[in-house]
Amino acid sequence: MKNINIKELARELNLSVSTVSKALHGSYEISEETKLRVMEMAARLDYVPNPYASSLRGRKTKNIGVVIPEVADSFFSLAINGIESVAKEKGYHVLICLTHESFENEKKILKEFQGGRVDGVLLSVSRETTQSDHVSNLISNGMPLIFFDRVCEDVDTAKITTDDAESAYRATTHLIQQECSRIAFMGISKSLSISNKRLEGYLQALAEHKIKADKKYLVLCTNDILQNYQLTKKLLAQKNRPDGIVASVEKLTTPVYQVCSELEIDIPRELKFVCFSNLETASILNPSLTTVTQPAFEMGKTAATLLFKSLEKRNVSLADESQVIPSTLVVRGSTKLSSKYASYTDYFAAVKNKKKSAL
Amino acid sequence: MKNINIKELARELNLSVSTVSKALHGSYEISEETKLRVMEMAARLDYVPNPYASSLRGRKTKNIGVVIPEVADSFFSLAINGIESVAKEKGYHVLICLTHESFENEKKILKEFQGGRVDGVLLSVSRETTQSDHVSNLISNGMPLIFFDRVCEDVDTAKITTDDAESAYRATTHLIQQECSRIAFMGISKSLSISNKRLEGYLQALAEHKIKADKKYLVLCTNDILQNYQLTKKLLAQKNRPDGIVASVEKLTTPVYQVCSELEIDIPRELKFVCFSNLETASILNPSLTTVTQPAFEMGKTAATLLFKSLEKRNVSLADESQVIPSTLVVRGSTKLSSKYASYTDYFAAVKNKKKSAL
Repeated sequence: MKNINIKELARELNLSVSTVSKALHGSYEISEETKLRVMEMAARLDYVPNPYASSLRGRKTKNIGVVIPEVADSFFSLAINGIESVAKEKGYHVLICLTHESFENEKKILKEFQGGRVDGVLLSVSRETTQSDHVSNLISNGMPLIFFDRVCEDVDTAKITTDDAESAYRATTHLIQQECSRIAFMGISKSLSISNKRLEGYLQALAEHKIKADKKYLVLCTNDILQNYQLTKKLLAQKNRPDGIVASVEKLTTPVYQVCSELEIDIPRELKFVCFSNLETASILNPSLTTVTQPAFEMGKTAATLLFKSLEKRNVSLADESQVIPSTLVVRGSTKLSSKYASYTDYFAAVKNKKKSAL
Repeated sequence: MKNINIKELARELNLSVSTVSKALHGSYEISEETKLRVMEMAARLDYVPNPYASSLRGRKTKNIGVVIPEVADSFFSLAINGIESVAKEKGYHVLICLTHESFENEKKILKEFQGGRVDGVLLSVSRETTQSDHVSNLISNGMPLIFFDRVCEDVDTAKITTDDAESAYRATTHLIQQECSRIAFMGISKSLSISNKRLEGYLQALAEHKIKADKKYLVLCTNDILQNYQLTKKLLAQKNRPDGIVASVEKLTTPVYQVCSELEIDIPRELKFVCFSNLETASILNPSLTTVTQPAFEMGKTAATLLFKSLEKRNVSLADESQVIPSTLVVRGSTKLSSKYASYTDYFAAVKNKKKSAL
């Protein structure tokens, strides 16, 4: 069946093409009532908007929108640099909007974009996002949109991700090889695609090594610094505390180091720690931090390149263009398998601890 | 003399008020020729646009624009959080645009904003910015604009800054108290207001302690990671190398630590280091880093609060509303005055170094 076009849709509605177009793009010039009427008829007649119509509408905005949870995470600041490296070449501006991990914010921002403020969108969803209507609506209104890193699995568009499950599997296997047997996993969301895949990889590595997963070693962190600190403390203050941690987000680095310092847990001797992180300071931490380093710049660059490809050509089916770019495990001091007492200082610390635990 | 209003200006030009208004706002609907004619006449008749006109033009955009050099610096990511905390309350979106320290990018972005994409702008200028016409033009076109952190001194609007000179003075004095006598200063720009003020504070502290400033201890860093690394290496590999460093930007932390590790310079024993930085990981670095911690969140929040005040009321004279919010010197391990040999390990290292230098 041939799709109807906007002219035919307008005729059905007894409205001008311009009014229908504005209604479909959420223009403020059109009443809510008319918008609703247009949307309903479009749905009933299965009207599929031409996704390239926006670039035909006379003036391009020459902007692309980047919607991300935050900028305080090195992954996102590097990904932005990757995106801007492409946008600059194309003569485009990049508008960055932050959701601060709120689904409501994310919906509002995409709604704003529907008004034609940008020519295309790169999106990494919030940790609260469990449904995808707001994304599908924007796309079906003709806005090219590409996910990077954090995706809605069910939306039919390109997704630029890294090998989250495999990376977590490698990180966990590394800890097992470093003689850890009580390995904790710290995630940040029950719904987020990346969080689930990382958990999956962790569980698979445990299973392959016949280590039983234990609920008391699974921590679901939040977006709040103080809460994450308390959750970390609870994890590490318990009896039979973990001897290894795989943390799925960079912001867990500081609480883990701080709690270990407070509880006098020696990293790496008593606790080995690996974190998904692009922290520039990873190598100068005390001890240096073993990281799953994500290809952040490259992911941003790839997503942006694809977006411009779809803005420039009419025949790009974004759904076929997903890419997985692998992460790298960078082994540093925090997972080092040291001889029991590396130095006098360690030896004295051990003696001191023994005395303490004898009390 | 009473200022002429837009009606009188339009009459002089024999154009409609709407055309003049669009021309003044840089609308794409108006030819470049007409824009030029309007601008010239406006200048000749000393037309001062009503800075609140934008909020009267029917629909507000409900966006504010934040123009900053980068997001990879913790100062800016925290400042953004401060800005967003206010914007959210007011029901506004924040569009973040990065200049990547390029003056050309900064001009383009402000030009874009002139088209009416945002209701107001918060700006922290690039390290290349030495003139301010692009800012003055935007303001005289009716856009409220407030500087934060990095300002153009000569533009007559509110500036939210920290006590840069005093902070650098305190940091340098602290190093002198910690027995440093060859103190280096690493800056990032010869033109940037904050960079000059920090240099000023550093020089004042030296002068007060009768320490002669030495050109070989002054380093002008760049925006390039590799170059900064090389400049740091040159600074620390020279004869009579510094025994203290005041670094004026966060991104110099990693090169300084890395070069010290490579050249086997012990921080803090052989080199004391203080950095302007809001790094969350400062306390878990090896050694922990003494910082000048800027009130980043508060500066963002204050700038945004002021911007909304000017959007809401007609009688705010932004130029009278500048504020200086003080930074804090947080003393940590990197400037610690230790007993000569804190541990056996230190002692052995010292012996080893002595042998080396005896060769």
